[in-house]
Amino acid sequence: MESSPRVPLEITVRFAETDMMGIVHHSAYVVWFEAGRIAWMATAGVPYAQVSAAGYNFAVTEINARYRTPIRFGEPVQVISRLTALRSRQVEFEYEVCHRDAGTLFATGHSRHICVDRDGRTVTIPQWVVEGMTAGIKRLSDE
Amino acid sequence: MESSPRVPLEITVRFAETDMMGIVHHSAYVVWFEAGRIAWMATAGVPYAQVSAAGYNFAVTEINARYRTPIRFGEPVQVISRLTALRSRQVEFEYEVCHRDAGTLFATGHSRHICVDRDGRTVTIPQWVVEGMTAGIKRLSDE
Amino acid sequence: MESSPRVPLEITVRFAETDMMGIVHHSAYVVWFEAGRIAWMATAGVPYAQVSAAGYNFAVTEINARYRTPIRFGEPVQVISRLTALRSRQVEFEYEVCHRDAGTLFATGHSRHICVDRDGRTVTIPQWVVEGMTAGIKRLSDE
Amino acid sequence: MESSPRVPLEITVRFAETDMMGIVHHSAYVVWFEAGRIAWMATAGVPYAQVSAAGYNFAVTEINARYRTPIRFGEPVQVISRLTALRSRQVEFEYEVCHRDAGTLFATGHSRHICVDRDGRTVTIPQWVVEGMTAGIKRLSDE
Repeated sequence: MESSPRVPLEITVRFAETDMMGIVHHSAYVVWFEAGRIAWMATAGVPYAQVSAAGYNFAVTEINARYRTPIRFGEPVQVISRLTALRSRQVEFEYEVCHRDAGTLFATGHSRHICVDRDGRTVTIPQWVVEGMTAGIKRLSDE
Repeated sequence: MESSPRVPLEITVRFAETDMMGIVHHSAYVVWFEAGRIAWMATAGVPYAQVSAAGYNFAVTEINARYRTPIRFGEPVQVISRLTALRSRQVEFEYEVCHRDAGTLFATGHSRHICVDRDGRTVTIPQWVVEGMTAGIKRLSDE
Repeated sequence: MESSPRVPLEITVRFAETDMMGIVHHSAYVVWFEAGRIAWMATAGVPYAQVSAAGYNFAVTEINARYRTPIRFGEPVQVISRLTALRSRQVEFEYEVCHRDAGTLFATGHSRHICVDRDGRTVTIPQWVVEGMTAGIKRLSDE
Repeated sequence: MESSPRVPLEITVRFAETDMMGIVHHSAYVVWFEAGRIAWMATAGVPYAQVSAAGYNFAVTEINARYRTPIRFGEPVQVISRLTALRSRQVEFEYEVCHRDAGTLFATGHSRHICVDRDGRTVTIPQWVVEGMTAGIKRLSDE
């Protein structure tokens, strides 16, 4: 997994995401992480909307974010996501939030998830999802 | 309906709701309106969670908000909600956002809704909801 | 102004923007409208971050949104924004939220704004902003 | 610090905070943590609005949240916050999110902060803030 591909997602900071300190509010990053892993899934060839429509979700069990440099409105932001674990019932992702051009590292984070069904019960990740993600990792790594 | 009771809800401004202008972001009021009408329903004796759990929702068809005076973090806010229409498939609410003590009127707004079932189809508002709301209006008006 | 150019912005629905009805929450559209008019400004050649950094903001005085068709996670959304008024101290925008491919009209809306300075006082829109916006409208209309 | 007082804050789940899984979205907890530590400050006698108005802010450097049991709309929630570190430039808080009546532990979390001035520079926490917090801890512990 250490070598799993890193998928970038461009983020345009929303004015609504700033706070009275004049910077992006820390809770926005958590939503960006989510957008980042959904972009990862799409790039890997397993759109999360398909997983969700099939009745499965990667419920969040842990979120961690470390903030280094504040982000201001107008700065071009990139969230780079990487799958770091794919187990029978769990997935984990890592994130880097950085300046698109300057490369400044704004923040890092990770998240842990368990697969749940429509009733919220922990279940095994469906085989087609695992296979799709695995094939995506291989394909992206080969590129 | 003009005389339908006005139900107040105290709002503690969240830091996350401020923006880089140093005031509460205008989108937060829309969420407060929702909290306001849910407080209205609870006070009327028909908790919205019950309506929703029974498979019905008051889907929003229109939102209007007029902003008069900006709100700053730390100011005690009150949203006063009032039902202005209760039809077979529709409800409407009006809102006033004001300073809890000084009475300053920060904003006004209204929303229109249609009743939908679990599949998102427009349906008649269930009889028990209509009766509960009507009884609540009468009881609150008599107080 | 009726002929002012329409600027599209692609929106990827965020999972966080959905609600327990399984559709995008109505407050998200208000944030999308904002992203839409900021995209309009950027396209017109007057990045809003510059206006804001110069100490001016287009404070929202009114928001209106009409919701026609619910939006689901995974649907490709486009917000099309158009300036409908440019006065000495005020601007107005109109929005259409539609399906990127199918063209379904999900919602429409408009917003009114007054220009304020760092202290929140109503002021005349700076000349360079008016000229930039006017030149942008002309340039985009000619394209 | 281990014995610093625990300050509860009642949270009414907002419909907007739910997602299409039918539960509260994980990013809402991060905003609740903030509301929780602001309630802690108020209870300790040092309203955060005063700290912020004086030009100081506790910028977030780290957020961690562990989610145990999903929260549904309508459930009465309580965030219990506790200061776990008060250093010359840093503060840390811990949070428990639980059911107000049943006591179910929904989630736990912690946050780290550095004190910054209006320009975002790391500074020593003002003496009056430290003294106020320390006096508040003592007073609350004695109650």
